[in-house]
Amino acid sequence: MRPISRFGVPPLDELPDDVRERIEQVGDRTGFVPNVFLALARRPAEFRAFVAYHDALMDKETPGLGKADREMIVVATSAANDCTYCVVAHGAILRIRARDPLVADQVATNYRQADITARQRAMLDFALLVATEPATVGDSHLRQLAEHGFDTDDVWDIGAIAALFAQSNRLAHLMALRPNPEFHLMGRVPQER
Amino acid sequence: MRPISRFGVPPLDELPDDVRERIEQVGDRTGFVPNVFLALARRPAEFRAFVAYHDALMDKETPGLGKADREMIVVATSAANDCTYCVVAHGAILRIRARDPLVADQVATNYRQADITARQRAMLDFALLVATEPATVGDSHLRQLAEHGFDTDDVWDIGAIAALFAQSNRLAHLMALRPNPEFHLMGRVPQER
Amino acid sequence: MRPISRFGVPPLDELPDDVRERIEQVGDRTGFVPNVFLALARRPAEFRAFVAYHDALMDKETPGLGKADREMIVVATSAANDCTYCVVAHGAILRIRARDPLVADQVATNYRQADITARQRAMLDFALLVATEPATVGDSHLRQLAEHGFDTDDVWDIGAIAALFAQSNRLAHLMALRPNPEFHLMGRVPQER
Amino acid sequence: MRPISRFGVPPLDELPDDVRERIEQVGDRTGFVPNVFLALARRPAEFRAFVAYHDALMDKETPGLGKADREMIVVATSAANDCTYCVVAHGAILRIRARDPLVADQVATNYRQADITARQRAMLDFALLVATEPATVGDSHLRQLAEHGFDTDDVWDIGAIAALFAQSNRLAHLMALRPNPEFHLMGRVPQER
Amino acid sequence: MRPISRFGVPPLDELPDDVRERIEQVGDRTGFVPNVFLALARRPAEFRAFVAYHDALMDKETPGLGKADREMIVVATSAANDCTYCVVAHGAILRIRARDPLVADQVATNYRQADITARQRAMLDFALLVATEPATVGDSHLRQLAEHGFDTDDVWDIGAIAALFAQSNRLAHLMALRPNPEFHLMGRVPQER
Amino acid sequence: MRPISRFGVPPLDELPDDVRERIEQVGDRTGFVPNVFLALARRPAEFRAFVAYHDALMDKETPGLGKADREMIVVATSAANDCTYCVVAHGAILRIRARDPLVADQVATNYRQADITARQRAMLDFALLVATEPATVGDSHLRQLAEHGFDTDDVWDIGAIAALFAQSNRLAHLMALRPNPEFHLMGRVPQER
Repeated sequence: MRPISRFGVPPLDELPDDVRERIEQVGDRTGFVPNVFLALARRPAEFRAFVAYHDALMDKETPGLGKADREMIVVATSAANDCTYCVVAHGAILRIRARDPLVADQVATNYRQADITARQRAMLDFALLVATEPATVGDSHLRQLAEHGFDTDDVWDIGAIAALFAQSNRLAHLMALRPNPEFHLMGRVPQER
Repeated sequence: MRPISRFGVPPLDELPDDVRERIEQVGDRTGFVPNVFLALARRPAEFRAFVAYHDALMDKETPGLGKADREMIVVATSAANDCTYCVVAHGAILRIRARDPLVADQVATNYRQADITARQRAMLDFALLVATEPATVGDSHLRQLAEHGFDTDDVWDIGAIAALFAQSNRLAHLMALRPNPEFHLMGRVPQER
Repeated sequence: MRPISRFGVPPLDELPDDVRERIEQVGDRTGFVPNVFLALARRPAEFRAFVAYHDALMDKETPGLGKADREMIVVATSAANDCTYCVVAHGAILRIRARDPLVADQVATNYRQADITARQRAMLDFALLVATEPATVGDSHLRQLAEHGFDTDDVWDIGAIAALFAQSNRLAHLMALRPNPEFHLMGRVPQER
Repeated sequence: MRPISRFGVPPLDELPDDVRERIEQVGDRTGFVPNVFLALARRPAEFRAFVAYHDALMDKETPGLGKADREMIVVATSAANDCTYCVVAHGAILRIRARDPLVADQVATNYRQADITARQRAMLDFALLVATEPATVGDSHLRQLAEHGFDTDDVWDIGAIAALFAQSNRLAHLMALRPNPEFHLMGRVPQER
Repeated sequence: MRPISRFGVPPLDELPDDVRERIEQVGDRTGFVPNVFLALARRPAEFRAFVAYHDALMDKETPGLGKADREMIVVATSAANDCTYCVVAHGAILRIRARDPLVADQVATNYRQADITARQRAMLDFALLVATEPATVGDSHLRQLAEHGFDTDDVWDIGAIAALFAQSNRLAHLMALRPNPEFHLMGRVPQER
Repeated sequence: MRPISRFGVPPLDELPDDVRERIEQVGDRTGFVPNVFLALARRPAEFRAFVAYHDALMDKETPGLGKADREMIVVATSAANDCTYCVVAHGAILRIRARDPLVADQVATNYRQADITARQRAMLDFALLVATEPATVGDSHLRQLAEHGFDTDDVWDIGAIAALFAQSNRLAHLMALRPNPEFHLMGRVPQER
């Protein structure tokens, strides 16, 4: 079995207090510590910036964009980037947030044929554009989002989440980051939902 | 929820006997009828040819290529083609054949970072080449496979499976074929293995 | 001169009777045995399935899709896959079926500038989509075909032929299958039409 | 049947003398006037420059690069650019120069499986690199050519021919330039060689 | 002239103190406020996280990776992403850090032909791999970097910078972020160096 | 510092008179001899043809297409081909012709976000199509240009310039042609305009 990260994982007791506390807090809440926290802790300043950026965009619910929508963007764009860690980990969170055991597999393989709304489809079309052909983003794409009721802040959020995971996916590939086994089953069986 | 196929599904009692019997037989063995059988039954001659081709390559175990290896080829190439049906259905079979709840998700997202042997990695490198850049297949690729102990018939099998699912994936996309919900969980929990 | 197939060709008298008879029958009808039959005979079960699938889609003429149309799909998609065998062999058949010595070369190089009808152009646009970007096939593409008078079964046929030759092209690349010299000239000179 | 060029063809008697004479001279030599001359004559200055550039690279035979080799480069790179005019017209010239009725179809579809020498294969590998990924040309590619006995001037010729037809192919696409029907059959039947 | 950002720019006096102070500090140091600061200030939490991440990777000099090297990675990967803001702004910084008025234009257009060392070339090869094909990063790439004397932390830095600007480039495209005119000339004329 | 060309530069006094005179004339007018003239002089016949073709398309001003427009096409398509020489040299000329110190950097990185008119945007969209996907050029693209007031000769010019620089860019890559340092600063500072 491959290691958690190509760069190894630092001992918890050598970490700065705030980093270790954040890790322990996540472990308490989730029941296990997602490997991304352990791997990133090798660089405390980057750890703090990443977690702050992540929380600013993902720990948030707006009228236009629920938490499940945000996770759906992560799964779809991470799949386009072939990122095992992000697809598996955020696929689990998506199943839980959406209370749907099937949607993550659908969105990860081909969101065009997933059981999602036309509004979510437009959201993912835009997120994928930002992920894969960002130089072509134009005003016409923003108008298409507006037709589905997304306001300016929603557009920023969709694009910014796709951009953040362009970064995260690449970091995970750099590390060959391994998803925790627990993620694979989370949200798939009724009692877990 | 989307229908099973864009082209609908014929009533079982209107099918030719051999097609209906094959469908019932699969249903008995698996516990449910995989949607691909129902959707393809709309065209009995194509149904028979597809099933015959599938069985000739997949219902087979050779010293060089086990059934789990064959399913692994299907999952990896179908993922490269973004085929929801094949990734989900054959992902389930791979989990069961390999007795491994994690490998299908790994292979479907990025086989380069999956927990597989170097030999399996070489097998998938070649299968992906056939799936995505077939015109570049050359003698050097066959030599690489030979270095991993694959003989001539193994090479044929690997390439032919990748070729067959190039067809199946496209057919599934044409139909917008929906995977049965049962597949998503199969082989993930201990008691099911 | 390269061999017929990387995997060799089995002696005719070692083949199962039905396979040998089919080969002899084709040879009698065509005047020579197309190499694909000889190369595939190495695997009788796959030979039978391939021939059955091929005949179910190609030996058929419907009000919406003539035999020349079907060959045109094969030539256009095989060219997109750079498949020498299929472009040369089916190019010959297309010239004969269409009674046109130029159309195969046109369709093989750039179907957008071929002397074909707008309806055939729409047919090839869809076939190429299935061949090269199958995950993006959507209902809008089916509506475009309907505007040109293609019904549901025509759509299935166009897509299924493109899918079948996605398989055949890859198999031919795997084998480095060599077209018979006879194909290159068939249908090019008046007396042959 | 489509016109010769999207931009039309000027009347011969309105052309400058040197342009008309060159056209008549080609017509006398070939038996018909290749359409590219008629279409380009719309712009006499560009006509003269194009013909001069073409002749400087193609009407030339060096110890390292025969006329058939030069045509082979044109066919292979024009096929990569899907240029009907250049593939059909230069395919005819290649058949004649190489005294081989099959090689043009092979090179146009997949030069990797054509009946050519290893030296010609290396030549086409480099020509295709210049045609499709020119920014990646590096010293290592020149060393590979040197290993096959190509000297500095040969390298210039191979690259410059690929570059010139990058231009010609695009011009032909711009015009939707139609190949003369005569080209399709030239060099295919023994008496014509 | 296009606006600074599609999403507008918030009034400085409505910003949180720390954000405004950081902006003023940058303005004092540089002589003008780079537009990215103004545009990102619309979202203070994201502003803080971005700036922190940026500084952790870019405001740093290690034995293996100088500040000019870091800027060179930004310019090369941002050019691959067609990001006007990042190419222009970081091109200016690269000219200054490298004390070279030409290198930024070279690296932005085709780093393979830039006047850089073999070690820098290897660094950019890896950075571009992370930027454009991150799923293919493997141990062999890390070994290649090691041959050029890059240690584990250097590899992390190169990859993490490429990853961070995968995010920044996409954010800039989302905003249609406009570079300040001052950047275009910075570091080009002797007295400015 | 890299040499001017991989193939070297011939001594001026060994050149044919007309070639040497043309080089001296350019040197007098520009203040230095652009390297492309020196590098191409190695092949006088190709030098003459190239210069003639260039002048026929670029030394020309029509009501529909000014000299700055023509240079803009060169910069945009050369950037798509990653051609350092052409982007730097023609970027300089574009700055001068357009009397705009910023537009060349904008067009070279992402013309979609440059400060250009909608008509220029349409012109560049078409030029890029010819440069990168020429086989897809169709009548609908010509109609779009007509809507922006481009007549038939303008369309020829736009397409022919894109085609010519498809050739020039590839030749420059073949030579690893180095831009003269003078180009980098030309047209950037007020007194030079």
